[in-house]
Amino acid sequence: MTVMNRQIILAERPTGTPDHRSFKFVEREIGEPGDGQILIQTHYVSVDPYMRGRMIDAESYVEPFKIGDVIQGGSIGEVIESKSNQYKKGDMVIGMFGWQEYYIANETEVRTIDPNFAPITTNLGVLGMTGLTAYFGLLDIGKPKAGETVVISGAAGAVGSVVGQIAKIQGARVVGIAGSEEKVTYLKEELDFDEVINYKKSEDIEMDIKAACPNGVDVYFDNVGGDISDAVLTQLNRFARVPVCGAISSYNLEEIDLGPRVQTVLIKKSALMQGFTVGNYADRFQEGASQLGQWLKEEKLTYRETIREGFDSIPDAFLDLFKGENIGKLLVKVGK
Amino acid sequence: MTVMNRQIILAERPTGTPDHRSFKFVEREIGEPGDGQILIQTHYVSVDPYMRGRMIDAESYVEPFKIGDVIQGGSIGEVIESKSNQYKKGDMVIGMFGWQEYYIANETEVRTIDPNFAPITTNLGVLGMTGLTAYFGLLDIGKPKAGETVVISGAAGAVGSVVGQIAKIQGARVVGIAGSEEKVTYLKEELDFDEVINYKKSEDIEMDIKAACPNGVDVYFDNVGGDISDAVLTQLNRFARVPVCGAISSYNLEEIDLGPRVQTVLIKKSALMQGFTVGNYADRFQEGASQLGQWLKEEKLTYRETIREGFDSIPDAFLDLFKGENIGKLLVKVGK
Repeated sequence: MTVMNRQIILAERPTGTPDHRSFKFVEREIGEPGDGQILIQTHYVSVDPYMRGRMIDAESYVEPFKIGDVIQGGSIGEVIESKSNQYKKGDMVIGMFGWQEYYIANETEVRTIDPNFAPITTNLGVLGMTGLTAYFGLLDIGKPKAGETVVISGAAGAVGSVVGQIAKIQGARVVGIAGSEEKVTYLKEELDFDEVINYKKSEDIEMDIKAACPNGVDVYFDNVGGDISDAVLTQLNRFARVPVCGAISSYNLEEIDLGPRVQTVLIKKSALMQGFTVGNYADRFQEGASQLGQWLKEEKLTYRETIREGFDSIPDAFLDLFKGENIGKLLVKVGK
Repeated sequence: MTVMNRQIILAERPTGTPDHRSFKFVEREIGEPGDGQILIQTHYVSVDPYMRGRMIDAESYVEPFKIGDVIQGGSIGEVIESKSNQYKKGDMVIGMFGWQEYYIANETEVRTIDPNFAPITTNLGVLGMTGLTAYFGLLDIGKPKAGETVVISGAAGAVGSVVGQIAKIQGARVVGIAGSEEKVTYLKEELDFDEVINYKKSEDIEMDIKAACPNGVDVYFDNVGGDISDAVLTQLNRFARVPVCGAISSYNLEEIDLGPRVQTVLIKKSALMQGFTVGNYADRFQEGASQLGQWLKEEKLTYRETIREGFDSIPDAFLDLFKGENIGKLLVKVGK
């Protein structure tokens, strides 16, 4: 039986805000798995802002995609044919096989996930890379202590919403910054954030942050960069920590992203800014996933996901990330 | 005997580049030391860029001076009258008594220095606050490893020149950035820096840094901020560390200091920027001073100081700091 495999490849590199011109749908024969390999049918693909960085030809922490490459990213699928002793037909696996309907994987490229522990989609979100990003960035760099104030930008996103909940578990006072009333309500009502600022309705973001943080800012988990981060940095306390996770405000800029230089505030406050990517913590993923899983079971951690339907909708889902409309993790369900 | 004490007080707060209008010479009767006190005659006063920050009325890591306050800073003097069991006439002491010819100190305000270990002026420089600033900033935040590349801006200054030598002791490759050919020669010939860039002669500072650092930058000890730091940050390696010690390029600015936002480079490189002041390490000063003293004795550490003469020349010495002409520590000898 010949299986035809639909794939989405990088057609051209985006400049500015990405659009459909960057993507092309192609169809290729998938072939048969060799010894030790498995054939996977994709069920869910993840779309994440960091992928924007891989679409351009600039040095970064991951290799840029080449033109014609299948867009790579976290995906979940089902083993439909196995020539490996490690996997059997019907196993659910997770890996970086990205935006395609089928994939032939070597044994070490994927790992099995347990569909009975939690919904399998959590492996791409709260128990997966986004949850681990929140976990390590907050705890290893931010190091919040009970009673401290933790501010989170992009607070209703896949990472931010987990950061806030972990900060609450640590006993911190949590202030979120988000861009819609729906997000504000979600963060306050469902995730129990202490304060949430809707930056789109703010007339003076610095004053609003100051008002929401009467004791200053001890930890700022930065998902966005730009003006919002400039404003939060003015409110840092002495010995504040700033895990720098993302800078979505700058990803689509075509000019140099200018703002107030940070040196003076870092000196005055003996403050720390540290960029990171979740891959830095690969040797501790097991620890992080276990702890996140335990909090999920204990209902100390909740999550929301937005699941789009159909392989054709993947590019739109990705492009929508930059509109900042979704709450929690954005996924696309493909196949059955 | 009535001793008249000349003092320099803050007359008005500087805006932009400070000038003589900020300072006023006054003369006051000093009085007699009480029980447990000592009368000190000043021999040397230190002038340091950070004092600029205390002259304005803005929140910082130290209280701003009040109008009419004696300008405070590190000074060395001789005990000329003692009503303390801890000090005897003729002892040399160091403290923060600042820009005045005499001072009555409580026992805990000063400490004795040993004039036989090294020239006493080293207690205001390589063995004092500037040496300790270099020591803790580089070793505690920069953490250079043998073979790594350490870049230092303000490299010929009191702090930078010590940073470079400590980095060499750690086995690092050391690249300095300084602003005159005299400084370049000093850093290369006397301090054995591997490369030195004269930024005033550079047509493309980023390209010059790149050329001087073919393996990238692992540690950037930032004394200056501004354009130079922007350029160095583009060359950071993965997991680079940036101790942020000073931002002299911005101290006299009257407008917001704008530059490329740092979030993206910090994320891409998983890099760390950390501001600090030497006071953070007060409980480890003894360790730092001992190690610096040992390196000095072993001739692994050398230093240069510029000593101006006369109490009247203190304001000029301070103002000259912002012209960036001096090499090493700038001091003023007052009294005998």
